[in-house]
Amino acid sequence: MIEKLLALSGMEASSTVIEGKGSQCSCSHAILLEGVDFDLVYTPLRHLGYKAVLYVLGDLYASLRTPEALSVNLGLSKRFCYEDVETLWQGMVAACGEHGVKRISLDLNPSVNGLCISLSALGSQKKKVLDNVPQTKNMDLICLTGHVGAAYMGLHILEREKVAFTSTNVQPELEKYKAVLGSYLSPEIKSDTVSRFIEAGCIPSKGFFVSRGLGAAVLQLVKETGLGAKIYLDKIPISSQTFAVAEELNMDAITAAMNGGDDYKFIFTVPIEKHEVIRHDFQDYDIIGHTAKPEVGAVMVTPEGAELEIRAQGF
Amino acid sequence: MIEKLLALSGMEASSTVIEGKGSQCSCSHAILLEGVDFDLVYTPLRHLGYKAVLYVLGDLYASLRTPEALSVNLGLSKRFCYEDVETLWQGMVAACGEHGVKRISLDLNPSVNGLCISLSALGSQKKKVLDNVPQTKNMDLICLTGHVGAAYMGLHILEREKVAFTSTNVQPELEKYKAVLGSYLSPEIKSDTVSRFIEAGCIPSKGFFVSRGLGAAVLQLVKETGLGAKIYLDKIPISSQTFAVAEELNMDAITAAMNGGDDYKFIFTVPIEKHEVIRHDFQDYDIIGHTAKPEVGAVMVTPEGAELEIRAQGF
Repeated sequence: MIEKLLALSGMEASSTVIEGKGSQCSCSHAILLEGVDFDLVYTPLRHLGYKAVLYVLGDLYASLRTPEALSVNLGLSKRFCYEDVETLWQGMVAACGEHGVKRISLDLNPSVNGLCISLSALGSQKKKVLDNVPQTKNMDLICLTGHVGAAYMGLHILEREKVAFTSTNVQPELEKYKAVLGSYLSPEIKSDTVSRFIEAGCIPSKGFFVSRGLGAAVLQLVKETGLGAKIYLDKIPISSQTFAVAEELNMDAITAAMNGGDDYKFIFTVPIEKHEVIRHDFQDYDIIGHTAKPEVGAVMVTPEGAELEIRAQGF
Repeated sequence: MIEKLLALSGMEASSTVIEGKGSQCSCSHAILLEGVDFDLVYTPLRHLGYKAVLYVLGDLYASLRTPEALSVNLGLSKRFCYEDVETLWQGMVAACGEHGVKRISLDLNPSVNGLCISLSALGSQKKKVLDNVPQTKNMDLICLTGHVGAAYMGLHILEREKVAFTSTNVQPELEKYKAVLGSYLSPEIKSDTVSRFIEAGCIPSKGFFVSRGLGAAVLQLVKETGLGAKIYLDKIPISSQTFAVAEELNMDAITAAMNGGDDYKFIFTVPIEKHEVIRHDFQDYDIIGHTAKPEVGAVMVTPEGAELEIRAQGF
């Protein structure tokens, strides 16, 4: 539907970019709506503010930009008091501080229904760096910046406990789920995500923010590059707690990792010649697969060598 | 409240700007929420899309930027079908076409409640031009780019007819209100708003988009410049139909002009030395007043010479 509409426009459909002389400026823009993107029953406002900012910064880092400025527009129903907005804002300011965002603006609007958060972040990168971005080719390495699936398990625990609390009014025991809850409620993005590649002389050919599932990010990679991609199932990093919670909830950890969402990780493609640099300087990253010829499509390879097609999840 | 929160952040609170080498990139960002900012009972989706884009472009023009790129995020409840989104989008694309916006992106999100439109527009301006922006001083001319108050009258007619239609089910006779309805439903902004100043060698010292009432724009001017402002009541351009409709609705046309909103006009301050240029090359603009010493504050001067303080309207 989006493609069809963009085609209608007859304009260049792309991320929002302005070309300057020595640098390129880029905008990342998102809305988060109460009842769809977050549930205030179990999401503290400070965490929500922090996470919302990371959500837009993620797309800037993925496109190799350094965040510089943020504009926040809030739609607020009468339910929210000044202290609520202040708490939300404190989370946003904390995220900005950690990520070097120096200019910030805020606008408040009345809303009939709940909380609406709209964010627009500006980032830039030197042309010198962008000119050195290599072409994505067949057999580029696909690197994932951290483990996936935990946030989705955290969300399911929160949803389960919300239902239980509503019917029994007993405060949930959440201590044992701390890691997966943390992955969902307070994800982290390292502010040197882009700069460490530049410093290592190893600029990725492409980057994607993993926020709607690893599978969706791989499909986006395939779509944007026109190449195929092979992901090796046994290379996907999944934490032991994710496996444990998945078992407790009778869910499949691999499915959570591929389709879950809210991971706040990245996949970057890197030329295979940089294999040693990645292994040496990026030991916290996992090489989970590689790009392939276009006819391969997006596939996940099982340990037995079977190739499963990665499919889009609906919105 | 916004000031208090921005002060908390300890960061540079400003419009979202990135400094480049030869140019400066700036972002204008807004959300429009159904039931607050628009009513789909009487707002055609195509008009809404068109107007929403002008709403964000207005702030770019006011800060002397040329629009270049637009990002649209829609929150859509199940009530909306593909054709609805297409119609809305067509209005957006039309506005982009008229204003030279060449890059456009779109994202769709589910919403529980109605339609949420978030827009983020990027514009830029050459440093050469921005370096020539004069300092705002006492006795700068305040120029308004067109008549005000009509859109507010249009909105009141639509609200009145909505109520009448709901109770009687009789189709309203709207032909005689065409001008004020047009001002509300399909405002216009000229795409040469900034460039004609540059071409005339007369760069404004400040610009403000008049979208929440002329009074609010004057107050913003006073706040941002630290100067006072005097507006002359008999210089404020108000159309004859605005006066006629105000009389019919038993409302005050001056109040509509000052506090109404949705005018989609601009006020620009220009050094008094450029008086002849404005009178000659900008005959469609009205000089409605001038900046003044800070102690004057924001005042409206009546034809009898009385000075009335311009006060902020709540949101």
